[in-house]
This record gives sequence, structure tokens and C-alpha cells, in this order.
Amino acid sequence: MSEDDKLSAEDRLIADYFKPVATHPGALGLTDDAAFLTPAPGTDVVLKTDAIIGGVHYFAEDDARDVARKALRVNLSDLAAKGATPLGFLVSLALPEDAGADWLARFALGLREDAAAFACPLFGGDTVRTPGPVMVSVAMFGSVPTGAMVRRAGARPGHRIFVSGSIGDAALGLVLRRGAIWNLTSAQRGHLIARYLLPQPRNALADAVRACASAAMDVSDGLVGDLAKLCRVSGVAAKIDVAAVPLSEAGRAAIAVDPALRETALTGGDDFEVLCTVPEPMAEAFRSAAQAARVPVADIGVIEAGEGAHFFDAGRELTFKRLSFSHF
Amino acid sequence: MSEDDKLSAEDRLIADYFKPVATHPGALGLTDDAAFLTPAPGTDVVLKTDAIIGGVHYFAEDDARDVARKALRVNLSDLAAKGATPLGFLVSLALPEDAGADWLARFALGLREDAAAFACPLFGGDTVRTPGPVMVSVAMFGSVPTGAMVRRAGARPGHRIFVSGSIGDAALGLVLRRGAIWNLTSAQRGHLIARYLLPQPRNALADAVRACASAAMDVSDGLVGDLAKLCRVSGVAAKIDVAAVPLSEAGRAAIAVDPALRETALTGGDDFEVLCTVPEPMAEAFRSAAQAARVPVADIGVIEAGEGAHFFDAGRELTFKRLSFSHF
Repeated sequence: MSEDDKLSAEDRLIADYFKPVATHPGALGLTDDAAFLTPAPGTDVVLKTDAIIGGVHYFAEDDARDVARKALRVNLSDLAAKGATPLGFLVSLALPEDAGADWLARFALGLREDAAAFACPLFGGDTVRTPGPVMVSVAMFGSVPTGAMVRRAGARPGHRIFVSGSIGDAALGLVLRRGAIWNLTSAQRGHLIARYLLPQPRNALADAVRACASAAMDVSDGLVGDLAKLCRVSGVAAKIDVAAVPLSEAGRAAIAVDPALRETALTGGDDFEVLCTVPEPMAEAFRSAAQAARVPVADIGVIEAGEGAHFFDAGRELTFKRLSFSHF
Repeated sequence: MSEDDKLSAEDRLIADYFKPVATHPGALGLTDDAAFLTPAPGTDVVLKTDAIIGGVHYFAEDDARDVARKALRVNLSDLAAKGATPLGFLVSLALPEDAGADWLARFALGLREDAAAFACPLFGGDTVRTPGPVMVSVAMFGSVPTGAMVRRAGARPGHRIFVSGSIGDAALGLVLRRGAIWNLTSAQRGHLIARYLLPQPRNALADAVRACASAAMDVSDGLVGDLAKLCRVSGVAAKIDVAAVPLSEAGRAAIAVDPALRETALTGGDDFEVLCTVPEPMAEAFRSAAQAARVPVADIGVIEAGEGAHFFDAGRELTFKRLSFSHF
């Protein structure tokens, strides 16, 4: 019996597909029960976990390569908003019987690509069989100088409110995936659907957030509801000028066809943009740092005393049917 | 609209059930997107993830309190074997529709009890709905002095092989749960079934392992297969005296009824005991430290040059139908 024959099927899967992603020396080539990392002196380890499930957070027919990248990116987005630099991740993977070698190979390809793109290696994982759908749970680790993780609490009256990129694309893309027809161009449709399929986390903005922001979070459950959460924890109110909320050209085109989609854009999930508050004297420095990082940011409003997130369109406050997306 | 009304159902679940488990200041009371920990100077962070699935790793009807504790303990067991002290954990929880408030309350109770018992607080988590069974994925963090995590690689010829507690109870308990009748006493049946339901990780042994062991791992997929893995990574062979492998009184009683159950005990999974190798000059110190920690340990054999794990019964080598448990 050769050594290889003695490996269990699970060991072989791990060896074949995941070892190339485990480039950190502390991962021990996935040959051990656990991994370790040696934090740089004077740093904190930032901890985050988010899971995605086939048929719930992505379409079951989506390419496993994109599934892997989405699972990483929803977590990387949190590191960006907390001002943290990626250190690496653990992945826990539940696989139904029909997810065979081809699926795993595509999944591992996606992991490897994004581990390289975000300098975020695999530390270890667990693969189990499930009678249910695929579930990918990622635990993500980042690094910040001690005490420097940017919190949700910290927004104060007078601070400006910034958001990166554009809002609503992924929520509109999801509606398109479900069959909506809005007479968009093929490029517009493609843009929105791609933004749902694969988040573009703003890790390039992390240093600027840490340097300038008083509070920050990523927009994952919709701008309206997420800003309300930030306000609640900070003990403040937010006043937003809806006209200043950045929309993509495709997003604007969809809303032009059906104005009700503005609410979808503002309250839908999966943006994975950075929402942060910046003291007025730091606003120009934040803009400059964002520009240097090549991440567009928009000033959408101001923090005030009070409570709740209030959205105004030409002076009139908007009301929403629901504040944010929830699976519950 | 009160502040409470603005909380999503998911936020309420988290607030109600999981906040009491998030006692570490870095968890920020679960009010943020992420948590942080400040590693003590001169320490490494040990990282581990393991998931359990309803109907696969436990019976769907098991008390959610025990499910939570099992999910934590299978990970705590790895920390014990690596010589690490628990720091805390993240949990990712997929819930089917029929897991309601009662289930969650029991689950949170189990988390809280074991977080307290093992000084291992919750840092954060994610709850998602699934059309499949419950899945609990835990990412566990521990602390060791820099460079001191005990690896699987490190066993050398002449080192003694120790295992904690007793072997095979959980595997026999699983066969009982599936309906086997062996004419055991009610206490014997109860012992074996309890060992399957709820692992008893040997975290009390962690300091002794770190002080004395050249290599270590926890026995989770069966003694025979797990020892073979340790040998493969260390580049050595193991020679085991089967008569020295510690069995519980209930385990011995079952094997007396059906001698074929010896193989079940030696190759079945879910022991969650510590398997380690100790240089001969350290063996007495290891025994003493284990005794001080009130964890029974048994010397079951010796590392030799060569490859593979070899089990001898009265001088005759045993062969096994399978080396270890695998879900694949």
C-alpha cells in the first residue's frame, strides 16, 4: 500500500485543491490540525465570519469559482470598512454529493485567485458532506495597529458621511437575475448582474478609513438600514441627500425606467461598499487618500444630533417599506 | 417607531441570545461588523475551524444545547492537542425554518455554558437561513508562546506514544444510538452514548502537552488512522501494544460481547482525546503533569524508524478494514 493509498478521500481533496492556497508558513501546508499566526508587535487581530449558502446567497448554478470569491469578498469587505489589512482566512465547506471534483477544482481556483489578489492566504479548513445545499463559511483575519479598528460607534454631529463606489447595483442585479426586463442595454444589464455575482470589496480604501474615519461599516444589507445601525450604535442621527447617493450609469437607467427601483437601490443588500463618517476637518484628507487609492467616494450627508437615518429628496423626507435586507 | 422596532429579526436574535456569550471587550457586545483581540506580546494565535451538521455529526433530535457544546468542543479539542489556551471563537450558524426561538435559546445556553467552562468567549458570528439541515461552523482561536504550537511533525524514533482518557467510547456510543443491543448495563450504555453526544476535550492537558510533547494531535477520526497521519507527517513509524490502549469499563464490556467491536473502538471517530509523542527523558514529567491536571494518560507504544502505524496484539500485528472515519 503506497502512502497515497493511505490518504483518505478527504485528505486527498485537501491536498489536491487547497494546499496551493495555503501559502502562509503558519498554515503548515495543511498537514496539521491547526495553523498559527504571529501577530506583528503593536497590532490587533480583527475577526470576522460570514457564510453564504447555495440558492440563498447565490444561484445554485453559479460558477464555483465565483462562489469561492464571493465567500471571501463578503468578509474582505468588512476588513476594508474596519481599516484592517487582510492576514488570511479559514474556510468551512459543506458539500452535497453532487458537488464533485469539477466543482471543487473551480472553487479552489477562485480561492487561489482571490487569496493572491488580496494577499490573504488560507490558514486551514474543514470539508464535510451535507444532505443540504453548499454552504461556505469563511472566518477572516485582519491586522490593525493596536486599538485602531474603526468601529460603528464614533460618529458625532457635524461629521460628514461618505460612501464608496455606487449603491444599489447588486440589488438591481438580483432583480434582473430573477427575470426583470427594464429595456437596459446589454452592457447595463451585464454591469448590474456582475455586481450581484461578485462583490468588489474596497480593501484599497482601508488605510484611508483608518486614517480619517470616526465610524465605518460596510454596506451589506442596504444603505438605509446599515446607516440606521451605525447611527444607533453611535447615538446620533444622519441626514442624507438622496441626490448625492452615488448611482452607476446602469443603476440610473434602471431607475429612470421604474422610479420604484430607487427604493430597491437604497435598501437592497450586497453593495459591499464602505460607509463611513469623517470629521469635517479630515474630509479633504479623506477625499485625497481615496483618490490616491483609486476608490471613488461621495459625500452624501451629515451626522446630526438625534436618532435614525433620514433620507431627503429635494427637501422632502422619504419613507421606505423596509429598511434593509434580512434573511429572517 | 421605537428603536427596538427598527431592529431586524436577525439583530434581535443576536441581541437576545448571543450577546451574553460575547463577554470579551473586543467583541464590542456584537454591535459591530467585526471584533478584535490584542494578542499578548510573545504569543502566536492558533487557528482552527470545524463544522458539524445535523443528521451527519449528530442526531437531528439532539438537544440544541448539546449541539452548541459539541460544535465548540470538537474545536477546543484541537487547541488542547496543540498546547494552546483558548482565546475565543466565531460561530457561523445556518438554520432551517423549523429551528425556532426554542432551539436558539437552547443553543445559546449551550454556547454560554461552555464559553464559561472553557474561558472561551464568543467574538462574533453570522446566522443565515438554509433550506438544508442545521450547520454550525466554529472558528476557534487559541494562544501559545511564539513558536510553541505543538505540531504533528516532531515524533522521532524512541519517543513514547501517549493517549489520554479512553478510546472508542464515542464510536461504540454511535453504534448504540443506531440501535445495537449488547446486553450492557444501563450505566454502561449511558456512558458510551454520552461520550458520542458530548466530547470531553482535554484542555486541562494543554500545558503538559506543550511542555513535554514532541508531536501531538487530537483523536477525532479514529486512533489508527490519526496515528498514521502523525507518523506520515513526522516521517516515522509507530508500534502500538493494543493491550495498552485505554478502554473504559463500558468499552471493555461491549468488546467482550462482540470482539469485532475492538476494531470499531480503534478506528471509529469522535474520541477527542489527545494523542502525543514524548521523548523518553520527558515521559515521567509528562505523567506527573497529566496527573496534576487530573487527566488520565496511557503509554501505548513507541515511535520507530519506518512508516505507518502498526498495532500488535500479543506479538501479532492487526489489520483493519478501514483506517479511520471519513465522511467522504
